[in-house]
Amino acid sequence: MKAGIVGATGYGGAELLRILHSHPEFQVGALYTSSQQGEAIHNHYPHLTENFPQALEEINPVQMAKEMDVIFLAVPSGIASKLAPQILDEGCAVVDLSGDFRLKNSADYEDWYHKKAGPEEWIEKAVYSLPELNRASIKGARFISNPGCYPTATLLGLAPLIKEELLVEGSIIVDAKSGVSGAGQSPSLGTIYSELNENLKIYKVNEHQHIPEIEQMLKVMGYSSPITFQTHLVPMTRGIMATIYGSIETNITENDLWNLYAEYYRDEPFVRVRGKGKFPATKEVAASNYCDIGVAFDERTKRATIVSVIDNLMKGAAGQAIQNANIMFGFEETTGLNFSPVYP
Amino acid sequence: MKAGIVGATGYGGAELLRILHSHPEFQVGALYTSSQQGEAIHNHYPHLTENFPQALEEINPVQMAKEMDVIFLAVPSGIASKLAPQILDEGCAVVDLSGDFRLKNSADYEDWYHKKAGPEEWIEKAVYSLPELNRASIKGARFISNPGCYPTATLLGLAPLIKEELLVEGSIIVDAKSGVSGAGQSPSLGTIYSELNENLKIYKVNEHQHIPEIEQMLKVMGYSSPITFQTHLVPMTRGIMATIYGSIETNITENDLWNLYAEYYRDEPFVRVRGKGKFPATKEVAASNYCDIGVAFDERTKRATIVSVIDNLMKGAAGQAIQNANIMFGFEETTGLNFSPVYP
Amino acid sequence: MKAGIVGATGYGGAELLRILHSHPEFQVGALYTSSQQGEAIHNHYPHLTENFPQALEEINPVQMAKEMDVIFLAVPSGIASKLAPQILDEGCAVVDLSGDFRLKNSADYEDWYHKKAGPEEWIEKAVYSLPELNRASIKGARFISNPGCYPTATLLGLAPLIKEELLVEGSIIVDAKSGVSGAGQSPSLGTIYSELNENLKIYKVNEHQHIPEIEQMLKVMGYSSPITFQTHLVPMTRGIMATIYGSIETNITENDLWNLYAEYYRDEPFVRVRGKGKFPATKEVAASNYCDIGVAFDERTKRATIVSVIDNLMKGAAGQAIQNANIMFGFEETTGLNFSPVYP
Amino acid sequence: MKAGIVGATGYGGAELLRILHSHPEFQVGALYTSSQQGEAIHNHYPHLTENFPQALEEINPVQMAKEMDVIFLAVPSGIASKLAPQILDEGCAVVDLSGDFRLKNSADYEDWYHKKAGPEEWIEKAVYSLPELNRASIKGARFISNPGCYPTATLLGLAPLIKEELLVEGSIIVDAKSGVSGAGQSPSLGTIYSELNENLKIYKVNEHQHIPEIEQMLKVMGYSSPITFQTHLVPMTRGIMATIYGSIETNITENDLWNLYAEYYRDEPFVRVRGKGKFPATKEVAASNYCDIGVAFDERTKRATIVSVIDNLMKGAAGQAIQNANIMFGFEETTGLNFSPVYP
Repeated sequence: MKAGIVGATGYGGAELLRILHSHPEFQVGALYTSSQQGEAIHNHYPHLTENFPQALEEINPVQMAKEMDVIFLAVPSGIASKLAPQILDEGCAVVDLSGDFRLKNSADYEDWYHKKAGPEEWIEKAVYSLPELNRASIKGARFISNPGCYPTATLLGLAPLIKEELLVEGSIIVDAKSGVSGAGQSPSLGTIYSELNENLKIYKVNEHQHIPEIEQMLKVMGYSSPITFQTHLVPMTRGIMATIYGSIETNITENDLWNLYAEYYRDEPFVRVRGKGKFPATKEVAASNYCDIGVAFDERTKRATIVSVIDNLMKGAAGQAIQNANIMFGFEETTGLNFSPVYP
Repeated sequence: MKAGIVGATGYGGAELLRILHSHPEFQVGALYTSSQQGEAIHNHYPHLTENFPQALEEINPVQMAKEMDVIFLAVPSGIASKLAPQILDEGCAVVDLSGDFRLKNSADYEDWYHKKAGPEEWIEKAVYSLPELNRASIKGARFISNPGCYPTATLLGLAPLIKEELLVEGSIIVDAKSGVSGAGQSPSLGTIYSELNENLKIYKVNEHQHIPEIEQMLKVMGYSSPITFQTHLVPMTRGIMATIYGSIETNITENDLWNLYAEYYRDEPFVRVRGKGKFPATKEVAASNYCDIGVAFDERTKRATIVSVIDNLMKGAAGQAIQNANIMFGFEETTGLNFSPVYP
Repeated sequence: MKAGIVGATGYGGAELLRILHSHPEFQVGALYTSSQQGEAIHNHYPHLTENFPQALEEINPVQMAKEMDVIFLAVPSGIASKLAPQILDEGCAVVDLSGDFRLKNSADYEDWYHKKAGPEEWIEKAVYSLPELNRASIKGARFISNPGCYPTATLLGLAPLIKEELLVEGSIIVDAKSGVSGAGQSPSLGTIYSELNENLKIYKVNEHQHIPEIEQMLKVMGYSSPITFQTHLVPMTRGIMATIYGSIETNITENDLWNLYAEYYRDEPFVRVRGKGKFPATKEVAASNYCDIGVAFDERTKRATIVSVIDNLMKGAAGQAIQNANIMFGFEETTGLNFSPVYP
Repeated sequence: MKAGIVGATGYGGAELLRILHSHPEFQVGALYTSSQQGEAIHNHYPHLTENFPQALEEINPVQMAKEMDVIFLAVPSGIASKLAPQILDEGCAVVDLSGDFRLKNSADYEDWYHKKAGPEEWIEKAVYSLPELNRASIKGARFISNPGCYPTATLLGLAPLIKEELLVEGSIIVDAKSGVSGAGQSPSLGTIYSELNENLKIYKVNEHQHIPEIEQMLKVMGYSSPITFQTHLVPMTRGIMATIYGSIETNITENDLWNLYAEYYRDEPFVRVRGKGKFPATKEVAASNYCDIGVAFDERTKRATIVSVIDNLMKGAAGQAIQNANIMFGFEETTGLNFSPVYP
């Protein structure tokens, strides 16, 4: 299968290239960017020297669709809404890593992204694809909307509790923390080293565009009240931790909770529930497609604390995109993703 | 005034020395340690070269009390409970930076610290001293129990809401994050560089010994239900951020909330409430005695988010100890502490 | 004395403000910038909240000269060459932190800085001021050219060897390493967090503009051959280390070498020569005006290794600027600079 | 082929496991440690959860040799000298990652390592294996002595110059910088986070045990004078950069030098010579087996500067060990190692 990468010079694009370099089924057919056309990717990313000899090409949706079997859109929000329909119209499959087709309600998109939403027709057709939650609908899809990084960590952390309807309505608080690579490679005062090193920041307080994405999926799963969700920038490059709080009125023990999670994720290749009383750290999933989870229940407050970690560029972006593409095309789900985290 | 530092080779001790070096009223009289006696402090801390010529001395409470006007105990919990009474008995003032005399209920101490509590008599006499909350009781005290780092950030973040009785009982969740220096200088697998760099960890889930300290003070202030309080280790040396969540049923706006905080802390020299819609980052208080605070209110969930940051070694330890000592001895509260944060 | 800061929103400017906030002789009279006029400095630097109420003002050399006793130019190279003459012509003293007046040979400036040099007349009048090497010429000067960060660390590391004429001509190699704050606050691909964290880079190979500055001063001191000087970017915010190599043919021991350095710097308040066999680390001078030095001699290769560390924003910029201003105006040289490094 | 890992709980051991997990020819047969026997490796390294179900076993050389085809010794120096002979005597192949069999002269070992050397007989038989320099002698060997991390970066950086006999005798200076993971996982004051973060240190000045290893190999290649070699600890987990200086008296240009390197390494799968005027950064080889090299020549000083970077745990340890094992057993040299660096 020939895969084309749009936005190859971004961090999401580079991570797709790293994975595809060792993927037995997909071959990188072409690299597309909005600038630097004609150059080799290793002029921009020397770490890719020799592995990708193709010159960067300009973005031409119709042409791309003709030459490739699948196009990965690793582009900022607001771009994919224009590209995807043209590529799909030509019959080529699309995996969109941006936020453009995640929200089914266009008004929500415009409220939270402050941009114009894409065409309704394609928003409806896009399959929001978090394999551990809706694997069946991904198989055979042609248009994948890849979940956001925070929603992936949060929804995998919440799913067993939601399914069992254990959480008190209105009690979910997610305190999320991310490494800096999620901000991408565009320089800004907010992302320079001297501003972020030895520093911890909260940002987009009550305004993060991933809030409606999480709430939309929670609603599908049966939980309908709004959540509190705050995001922090941690001085590290990769990694997301969602510390999730929720009240449980049912009579339950920490042991029950742990069993629920262990059982729920028993057969999932990319979700690892830590042992009782143990909690994952972000580096334990670095550069891998794992989501690691730990659970606790406090008798004093009747509140569960769920800790869910992923690598934002892997399970939070490129890794999950490949996982989705594997399912879409009928390959073994772990193909090309079955490698160990890098530690330390 | 001659000040003696017990535990001068720890990070808290070193920070006391940094402050006292420029303090016009206190003079460092002697440095005491449980090891390395006879050596110069700069053998252990070359950054202190030339400023502290005194050799390290052994810890002898009676002798120390005779030679000094005030003793700062920058020692691990379990040590101060033995030293403080002997020093106080000799008539010397004590500022204890450890947790040994913070909890008025000895059973709580033994439950959460897993150590034997100190003598009841001195636990009663110790003044838990968070100047912005109980300045009056510090003046003229002889025995200061300096608050913990997390409780300082958390209680200053909560005080205005508690005072106005705005928070729903049982709704407080504190998601706290700390730099690594809080773990002290003792080497352990958990604190080595390669394990913590590019990593984010949660630790002591539902078991942090600062929980009863915060709850005790909240109770004094009129809020009596237990809190959820989780702590995370962030890959940075200094800094604490407490992200505090609480539900408000009263009809209130974000603007009201901001006014409440701005008013409450208007005359405090070391608490700075950020402008509306702005939130502090930890580096903005680095190496200073400030506590910076930002406030938000989410109409969707009726939940307040309060962000409170301090430097754990300063307002969270040595800085606040000096602030308390200033008050205790009747000096201007900001003496020796009135310097700018170090940025970047 | 009223001091005006041009470039107050840069890191050098912010560090000047931090120092001057506690300086008993200089008072910050005004803050000037090329943008953001009318705003408070704490909109840009929240860590400075409350300490500097003045609004940022536009840069008007004549006006500035009238209102201030001394102007600190914390601006990029190419700007100071235009501002300084106008300010000086009005009779106001200037401390220039940029590279514009350091090189006496304008052709060198144009070759290495790739910019047009300033007026010859003022280049001649500017006093290149590294107090430990030419204190006498600073006293009473009106126009200080403050040395570069790398030259400060390098020249202080080399001075005793040069003075004693111990080094073989052509044998000096300086392998210099710097934290990222030296690159300033302007965002660029090269300075964003994700590119620099967990990374070590060499840059400006054989082309750093500090090479002619070091060679010019070495020539004054009696050493005239060119040096090899390479610079590396280290994933930390502050700190410079110059590892200096030079061959010695004279019969000498490591002990002799150490005695030479200890003696040479015995009375210097800001240079600390480490004990025999000990070497400084950059954090041991963080946020202070110290330059710490360690020396070694290898019998096998007859080569000396000198390690010299400074904080690039302090002794490498703002700290040394204040030290020079103190000397210029006849204040005690350590005024406002006599504080301990921040550690850890 | 069944591979046994001794020292599986160290960083070198963990990296071997990461590679072998995806290696098509070697299967991890058993994990051996000097402690924690009976436990699963993921109790120590949660990132390895599920991939290595085997319990840790005690170290029994004879037993190990019977059960495995090859034993990787990822142990501290002083241990391998005892284990290797017993394993080899039983007919099992050994790849030793420690320094115990690198130095052919036992007196050198004892001088620089301050430990007793291993048996002469086995020191002679051990093949010091840096594939790019002596591939032929590795094929068919049974006992591999894997080079040190610094020697790998340094020797690959020097080889073309040495081969062409371009360097002036006595002119080599190597200023080497390493991430902290090279210090291993044993906690010590020198490796804790708060001491190393935002810090740059020089260590083992003129005393690093890799000096005789480099000199021994240089001598084999035809360069016999001693080198100056200093090592620095950089606040990052992985990565080594060797900045190598040497004088060239022959008439040569930077272009000539670049051509020499490009030609010399043209067919090497793991050495990438950067384009003219470009230099590698350590993160560009992170988690990969590459050694990336950049070259410069300064006409002013007639000195070459060679920059050579590796990941110390990969090409500097585990990666090269697998590369050597591949050659030893006749597999394609890049087997299991042909993956992209992790960036950012």
